[in-house]
Amino acid sequence: MSKRIIAVLPGDGIGEEVTAEAVRVIEKLNAATDAGFECVHVPVGGTAYDLHGTPLPEDTLSTARDANAILLGAVGGPKWESAPRELRPERALLGLRSELSLFSNLRPAILYPELADASTLKPEVVSGLDIMIVRELTGGIYFGGPRGIETVDGQRRGFNTMEYTESEIKRIAHSAFRAAMQRDKRLCSVDKANVLEVSELWREVVTKISSEYPQVELSHMYVDNACMQLVRAPKQFDVILTTNMFGDILSDAASMLTGSIGMLPSASLNADGKGMYEPVHGSAPDIAGQGIANPLATILSVAMMLRYTFTENAMADKIEAAVQRVLANGLRTADLAREGETPVTTSEMGQAVLDEL
Amino acid sequence: MSKRIIAVLPGDGIGEEVTAEAVRVIEKLNAATDAGFECVHVPVGGTAYDLHGTPLPEDTLSTARDANAILLGAVGGPKWESAPRELRPERALLGLRSELSLFSNLRPAILYPELADASTLKPEVVSGLDIMIVRELTGGIYFGGPRGIETVDGQRRGFNTMEYTESEIKRIAHSAFRAAMQRDKRLCSVDKANVLEVSELWREVVTKISSEYPQVELSHMYVDNACMQLVRAPKQFDVILTTNMFGDILSDAASMLTGSIGMLPSASLNADGKGMYEPVHGSAPDIAGQGIANPLATILSVAMMLRYTFTENAMADKIEAAVQRVLANGLRTADLAREGETPVTTSEMGQAVLDEL
Ligand SMILES: CC(C)[C@H](C(=O)O)[C@@H](O)C(=O)O
Ligand SMILES: CC(C)[C@H](C(=O)O)[C@@H](O)C(=O)O
Repeated sequence: MSKRIIAVLPGDGIGEEVTAEAVRVIEKLNAATDAGFECVHVPVGGTAYDLHGTPLPEDTLSTARDANAILLGAVGGPKWESAPRELRPERALLGLRSELSLFSNLRPAILYPELADASTLKPEVVSGLDIMIVRELTGGIYFGGPRGIETVDGQRRGFNTMEYTESEIKRIAHSAFRAAMQRDKRLCSVDKANVLEVSELWREVVTKISSEYPQVELSHMYVDNACMQLVRAPKQFDVILTTNMFGDILSDAASMLTGSIGMLPSASLNADGKGMYEPVHGSAPDIAGQGIANPLATILSVAMMLRYTFTENAMADKIEAAVQRVLANGLRTADLAREGETPVTTSEMGQAVLDEL
Repeated sequence: MSKRIIAVLPGDGIGEEVTAEAVRVIEKLNAATDAGFECVHVPVGGTAYDLHGTPLPEDTLSTARDANAILLGAVGGPKWESAPRELRPERALLGLRSELSLFSNLRPAILYPELADASTLKPEVVSGLDIMIVRELTGGIYFGGPRGIETVDGQRRGFNTMEYTESEIKRIAHSAFRAAMQRDKRLCSVDKANVLEVSELWREVVTKISSEYPQVELSHMYVDNACMQLVRAPKQFDVILTTNMFGDILSDAASMLTGSIGMLPSASLNADGKGMYEPVHGSAPDIAGQGIANPLATILSVAMMLRYTFTENAMADKIEAAVQRVLANGLRTADLAREGETPVTTSEMGQAVLDEL
């Protein structure tokens, strides 16, 4: 079997702590099977900026490029907020997505039955929630041009361009329809076609692609209504397909609905199955270094990696089952613990998953 | 006293039914005081399209322009969905906003204690919720250019421009700071300054304007986080200031949090206090013509009109108090009625408010 290289980019804040537990899971898989994963650690984000003066050093980018998959912790923190715009930790994320053509961002929003009461929504509204958001990740207003701040007639004007080509829309639509085929076969495409021409093209192309997936039921929704429906009746959704900007907003709302944002993994894939995997949560500088962060989102990101990049579905199933057993056994990190419950540490939670594997 | 002309644009669907009740309230004010309001009815939206071949006839626009205030019902419906883009009912809304320079859109999201259990969020998360969203309404990506769909190298590309000038940002920032001064003096400005240059300028200008309102506590939040925080802990907000596009999304989410979207009014103001007032809900074609729609959002829009355009605060207070008494008396239209409760009709609800005035 050819080498299976995983670039590990712990990043900032709790990134270090949570990726450490995920790497322990990978090592256990190596020990138990002939999986042969090799982890290569490189710095990214503020940590890389402190070491090398840039959040995405050339060596980090080339390691990520040569790897089969990337495991990312989290980037950012107040320490780097006053760094020049192009050197802020988030730019590393945007750079990796763009340089590696990771155009397909999969963000599941799942309510774990064991954590049902953590949601701010009423139980009947969210119980059993299981949505997959497919967000376009390398186009749209994030990367469109022209962009900038210019001075016209003595007055400044800021501008950005939201743009999509037919081929960009096609490839993300295919990702979403394929995701829907693996699930409940319902796809809701979210746009703002009543106002934006770019959305008009989006809607037309998505509709055209749908003829290749006759089993999938396609619907369209305006982004304002979609955000409203996520609050009103989120279980109506199966797969949501949307643009970079709208997906940024909707996926954050959707993950918060579940009340278990510390539990949610994500995948960002290119056309060849290469992917970057990361927890949905951020670097949480307020609790960094205390050993109390929840490592489960990162461990579940490894499961997504096994599924999408390495097609090791059995291994992925095993990890997910182990996580569910650990929750069922009542283990809770601080973010999940209710009043009166004693939380476990990051490494105790990691160890518990290892023991269940 | 000079004439006080109110252009009434009932529009489509339930628009006709709900504005009729609001006009009855205005007529009662006329009868009881020397208020001297004069209502002039003109068609808009699909209804106008059917009559005159355009959703915003010249006569409607000039009536709206000459009036002191505009009361709008709602526009749109499946009947007109296949009309050419520029002739769809929504275009009338965008046209009115832009032609009359109604740049400041105020959207309160209030949880009525009498309707507390209509929210999909847990009571402790939303009880007492009272947010004011200030949305920029005549700029940003809604009206920016260049825009269109072009063919490059045999491939189509859709594009829109998100843009703001310093002066556009300044005037909406002043609106928001003034709103905050009337309330709890906390303003959260929402942008995406970690990705967009236009947001960078937005943040800078809002921060500069804040020095003129030293009593207001200003914070900044990224739009994805703001949407998440609306679900997680909405009571942290007092006034939210944001752009046209982000405001479209966030205000829909915020109004749905209250569970009483049939209750929420809105105002769209220009620099001179002229305003267009309308319910937040849409034209609800599914229940149109049945006389069961909730007229309270439109009646409360009249209260906003009295406050913001006519500075008749005592009259506004009276209407709001009448609505609260009607709710307290247990009257519920179909959208608010719980199982086992017998709903009242649109005109019964309207009459009940009149009786309490
Ligand atoms: C950090 C930021 C640039 C990023 C984004 O906007 O894409 C984040 O919000 C995300 O969703 O991954
Ligand atoms: C109908 C549509 C054009 C409009 C908007 O996007 O502004 C509506 O959603 C609103 O919020 O008033």
